[in-house]
Amino acid sequence: MPHISAKGQAMPDSPIRKLAPFANAAKARGTHVIHLNIGQPDIATPDVALNAVRNLDRTVLEYSPSEGFASYRERLAEYYNSVDVAVTAEEILVTTGGSEALVFAFMSCLDPGDEVIIPEPFYANYNGFATLAGIKIVPVTARIEEGFALPPMEDFERAISSRTKAILICNPGNPTGTKYPDEAMEALAQLVKSRDLFLFADEVYREFTYDGSNARSVLTLPGLDDHAIVVDSVSKRYSMCGARVGALVTRNAAVRQAAMKFAMARLSPPTLAQVAAEAALDTPDTYFDDVRVSYRQRRDALVGGLSSIEGVLCPSPGGAFYAVAKLPIDDADAFCQWMLESFDHEGSTVMMAPNTGFYATPGLGKQEVRLAYVLELEEIEKAVACVRAGLVTYPGRK
Amino acid sequence: MPHISAKGQAMPDSPIRKLAPFANAAKARGTHVIHLNIGQPDIATPDVALNAVRNLDRTVLEYSPSEGFASYRERLAEYYNSVDVAVTAEEILVTTGGSEALVFAFMSCLDPGDEVIIPEPFYANYNGFATLAGIKIVPVTARIEEGFALPPMEDFERAISSRTKAILICNPGNPTGTKYPDEAMEALAQLVKSRDLFLFADEVYREFTYDGSNARSVLTLPGLDDHAIVVDSVSKRYSMCGARVGALVTRNAAVRQAAMKFAMARLSPPTLAQVAAEAALDTPDTYFDDVRVSYRQRRDALVGGLSSIEGVLCPSPGGAFYAVAKLPIDDADAFCQWMLESFDHEGSTVMMAPNTGFYATPGLGKQEVRLAYVLELEEIEKAVACVRAGLVTYPGRK
Repeated sequence: MPHISAKGQAMPDSPIRKLAPFANAAKARGTHVIHLNIGQPDIATPDVALNAVRNLDRTVLEYSPSEGFASYRERLAEYYNSVDVAVTAEEILVTTGGSEALVFAFMSCLDPGDEVIIPEPFYANYNGFATLAGIKIVPVTARIEEGFALPPMEDFERAISSRTKAILICNPGNPTGTKYPDEAMEALAQLVKSRDLFLFADEVYREFTYDGSNARSVLTLPGLDDHAIVVDSVSKRYSMCGARVGALVTRNAAVRQAAMKFAMARLSPPTLAQVAAEAALDTPDTYFDDVRVSYRQRRDALVGGLSSIEGVLCPSPGGAFYAVAKLPIDDADAFCQWMLESFDHEGSTVMMAPNTGFYATPGLGKQEVRLAYVLELEEIEKAVACVRAGLVTYPGRK
Repeated sequence: MPHISAKGQAMPDSPIRKLAPFANAAKARGTHVIHLNIGQPDIATPDVALNAVRNLDRTVLEYSPSEGFASYRERLAEYYNSVDVAVTAEEILVTTGGSEALVFAFMSCLDPGDEVIIPEPFYANYNGFATLAGIKIVPVTARIEEGFALPPMEDFERAISSRTKAILICNPGNPTGTKYPDEAMEALAQLVKSRDLFLFADEVYREFTYDGSNARSVLTLPGLDDHAIVVDSVSKRYSMCGARVGALVTRNAAVRQAAMKFAMARLSPPTLAQVAAEAALDTPDTYFDDVRVSYRQRRDALVGGLSSIEGVLCPSPGGAFYAVAKLPIDDADAFCQWMLESFDHEGSTVMMAPNTGFYATPGLGKQEVRLAYVLELEEIEKAVACVRAGLVTYPGRK
């Protein structure tokens, strides 16, 4: 029997998947499981997007151009300009989700063995894309006590080696929800210019901020045209995670040219989803206002509720729809499993993601969990009550 | 300015893209360009597939499971069993097009530096996927004089090194249209068993055969459960290239487990397209009967027409919708460009793919072009007339 590859073996498993059987078992014994473990919002996809698909007038579902439909790229450029990101359609490559945009960025800019520095905790799937590309993630640690602020530039400097090619940030962040302030962004800009690095920014949560202004795009930082590469997606923006439409946006022509060759190999991003995504650009501003109000209420209920529990630290995140809480427990993996396996409170329990899976440094995050506030207020409140009650009886309480 | 990766530089460009400006120039001067250069059929997508999308009743376009919707995988298993491929839903991983299935197969089974043997000429994008995975393609040459029959097993044996992990075939073939007979398939099965190699088969053209029987799947070859991996796609089958729905099908659980980890990293194949693809499984058999009749007429018109030109060799392909013709010319790249740049016949010219791009061995295919018979009969006949007239005046005629 021929063996699978070392890379296939090395690919990380999802940090949440190992909990799935316990969630299923909880459901099987009649417990209501509140899913705060993944970023799948319950928000309706804008009608305008779904209707475009319902009114489809194509008779042949043809390939789109490898770079995406021209009409969609033109409209996307208008969207970016409307959020103060001055780019042209030519600077946008439509991808199959933000995932593919990041893979193209890694593949176009780094060779096997090269290093990318990422503030931890970070989105766990970055590990998979790094393994796929054969590159190494070097973490710099952000701390919950500082609201997961961007670590000081000295920490980044210290992490730079001869193999370092890029820094990757997620802003607003997953899992932290942190929205980086201007000074942090400008410090990063200085650093990547002086050390001649790429600056990748995962900006898929751009609109989900709760202080009245969008997160700042790396494409608005002066002097960064050759360095800044944005990874974007319609998944969260329009609650259409299943569409699989994203974008790689950069003014660096050499990167675009390389990425375009990867794009040509896979032929085309999905046609139907591009139809929906283009129409989604007509989503009225009131949709986002409503969504922001809704997420803000959920955030406040979650963070306020958790913070009122003795021994719990839960900084209020400025963006996205995740919060990390530090709990008075011995081991987040054990606690999340126990909540599903051995606990219920008034017939309910909560599924959370242990934050250990979001750190590259072993041993970090052992007291932390990530909660995605993607459900209705009532469920969020129930979830807080469950965590509160769970912490009382959990045998590994500290 | 930070540099792009060596891999980004090494990624091959599409062998057809360099002709695009010449096609555009031809159109700009009023010449009708008959596109036989790519496998984008003009055949209508089955109504049943498009209507499923038009009747979409979802309100949130959620992620599907990473392995694809369960209902779709169940129905796909029924489809495979109906074409005598005995597999279960569990043995099917839904992918974002056949492209992604092949990338997952390469990544799961080969490490950087490993080798895959492929009969040449082969689908040019295999080069891109190999570069992406950091693996090496080792060609064994099939000859137009033998109708691009599978090369003898001695040629494969000779190509095997200590780094060889797999053989990849495309059956029926792109660009050759060759459908491998049972003896050839069984010889391959013997070889991969005795040398402990994976056998990847790109079977996306399964239904497009013109002798009354489907192409034989590697999954029907006895004793190959651990070796055989099928790459499949709805793109050609239902003329829905833009859907981007494919499948990796194998009974090898270790390969599925590795591929699943790559699948989880990219979260989900496209949701809307899976809705269309699942519905497409209800396409009536008469659709395929009609399509086969239509392609067969086109093939006969193309191959018959070209073969009647002096000095032209064009074997009649048993499957897919491509034919390769050997022409009395000095250089296929120059000829294809000249046809667009400097020639028209009664207001028309033809865009073809130089077959040089489908060989890995330098210098091969210099007299060969690939033609995709994906247009109406009338256009095919016009195209033949153009090639006939072009060969009279082409300055590099031999």
